[in-house]
Amino acid sequence: MGAASKPLVSRRVKVAGLGKYLPERVIASAALEAELGLEPGWVERVTGVRERRRKGPDETQASMGAQAVLAALADAGCSLDDVDLIVCGSGLSQQAIPCTAVLLQQALGLAARGVPCFDVNSTCLSFVHALDVVGDLVARGSYRCAVVVSTEATSVGLNWSEHESAVLFGDGAAAAVLVPTPEGEPSLLFEGCFTTDSRGAALAEVKGCGTAWPPSDPATPREYALFHMQGTRIFRHAMKQSVGFFTEYSTRLPFALEAFAALCPHQASLVAMRLTARACGFRQDQLVENIETHGNCVSASIPMVLHDGVRGGRIRRGDRVLLAGTAAGLSVGALAMVY
Amino acid sequence: MGAASKPLVSRRVKVAGLGKYLPERVIASAALEAELGLEPGWVERVTGVRERRRKGPDETQASMGAQAVLAALADAGCSLDDVDLIVCGSGLSQQAIPCTAVLLQQALGLAARGVPCFDVNSTCLSFVHALDVVGDLVARGSYRCAVVVSTEATSVGLNWSEHESAVLFGDGAAAAVLVPTPEGEPSLLFEGCFTTDSRGAALAEVKGCGTAWPPSDPATPREYALFHMQGTRIFRHAMKQSVGFFTEYSTRLPFALEAFAALCPHQASLVAMRLTARACGFRQDQLVENIETHGNCVSASIPMVLHDGVRGGRIRRGDRVLLAGTAAGLSVGALAMVY
Repeated sequence: MGAASKPLVSRRVKVAGLGKYLPERVIASAALEAELGLEPGWVERVTGVRERRRKGPDETQASMGAQAVLAALADAGCSLDDVDLIVCGSGLSQQAIPCTAVLLQQALGLAARGVPCFDVNSTCLSFVHALDVVGDLVARGSYRCAVVVSTEATSVGLNWSEHESAVLFGDGAAAAVLVPTPEGEPSLLFEGCFTTDSRGAALAEVKGCGTAWPPSDPATPREYALFHMQGTRIFRHAMKQSVGFFTEYSTRLPFALEAFAALCPHQASLVAMRLTARACGFRQDQLVENIETHGNCVSASIPMVLHDGVRGGRIRRGDRVLLAGTAAGLSVGALAMVY
Repeated sequence: MGAASKPLVSRRVKVAGLGKYLPERVIASAALEAELGLEPGWVERVTGVRERRRKGPDETQASMGAQAVLAALADAGCSLDDVDLIVCGSGLSQQAIPCTAVLLQQALGLAARGVPCFDVNSTCLSFVHALDVVGDLVARGSYRCAVVVSTEATSVGLNWSEHESAVLFGDGAAAAVLVPTPEGEPSLLFEGCFTTDSRGAALAEVKGCGTAWPPSDPATPREYALFHMQGTRIFRHAMKQSVGFFTEYSTRLPFALEAFAALCPHQASLVAMRLTARACGFRQDQLVENIETHGNCVSASIPMVLHDGVRGGRIRRGDRVLLAGTAAGLSVGALAMVY
């Protein structure tokens, strides 16, 4: 990229609050192993996931996202009346039309005030891209209390004949409240950096549900609505992409990678995440992880680990935090902040 | 909104080039009337559409969008090698995963350079939201040649038992190249303003294709993959929303609404567009229209009329231009620029 060696731009925007919502129903890996005829322990050994949540039949991306927003507003000391922007940064959509942010507005009861709504999508990096662009909208003064929501109902698109991916994913939502950084406080959002190599576009995909293979066409196979992934090839591809990306990224930061108090990585799979982080120059004790109990929650994983890092006391105000991950595309991205 | 009476922020970002792609196949309203058993002249009288394009069986949102990008780059005097960001601002997606911008990157052959990709979606206002956020990314110096692409394959989701909407839509794509405004040139992008009222969320929808009614579930009716709209109710709702919105919007502009050389409105339907524009204080001669020959191309309509206004000589460098429209949600939005 042309701007490669320029220092990262920063914005005086603060993540004022974080919220998370997990559906009640816990699906243990042991139960899946029994159901699928897999060797006991296989799921946790291969993916690092011991249990994940699955949404109830009446839960939707909007209802889960709304719960996460309410928790984030409470954390920020804000009320629903303060919200002036709703951005949904999710990999999946609840319906084809309208966008999911509109359905979130409905679930939150914010219709009458006319709060603007739009979606940002880059699959597992959707939260990071959304945070990046909403950071600009808040920094330029257009909004004073924006919510960024990632909410995923992965369980409806699992391909149970493809064990490796079917056992990996979990449902849930997370949200962040963004405000201008108050005078005298240290919070900053640095610019997000991203790279995509579409030679890996078919390595993680749901081929259907869109205009290429419309569900209305009887010729579209039903399994095209299900997730397909080639885990080993993704890992190799993403590892190579990530090492180059973070080598360049570190030259643009105003401090070294080791100065991050926490790395909040996408919870793609436990082994892949740890090996990639190590190869990119991070220490294991910098990583915040929740894949063991949450599974891979697509776009919601990164804000969930940020949330968990803060709630667990590992991330404090003024700490340097890095959100980073890989996504279908294949893409790699990162956004540094002073929390 | 809290920021309601503040003057609009502007950014020194230039729409350096515009491109449009229309599939070859023309579908005349007369042919549809014959096919559907409608009275001759009904379609044009009700919707204003005389003909629209329909994509060929091998065309995709990505292939159409790529053609629009190539045309926009040629117009800007840029090459593919200059592109450093691809943002797809479309209402429809080609697949559920990955995002459509990735598939555009693939179609453009830009994989090896790692050009970042993400999607922005607010249905018919997707281009305007995308332009707004990409404007910030260019203004802050992250990108020097960003493309914003709106590409729609509406023909795959038409509900032929609902004549009013089935005859309205067309396929096609449009793209814009965004660069920092060169020293001494007048081009500006003002901030975009938007409002959503989700009490109208069910008035224009595709209920399926997402996690609420997954196509993999045999219980999901096939027609949920098709577009449904309540035209008269949308018109009334959008009219009321729009008048309030533009009354407020005009107080934030540094000039009067009549100073716009051109209004590039979403081509929702001819009568609705004209009546709404008039009620909001615009003159008929400010409107750029192409619904007669293009139909409603969802997100691609606004950049298409911007393109047509420039190519037809109605919009010249330094002119004040307003992009504005309504979208499923229901949403209303506008973005003013000095072209």
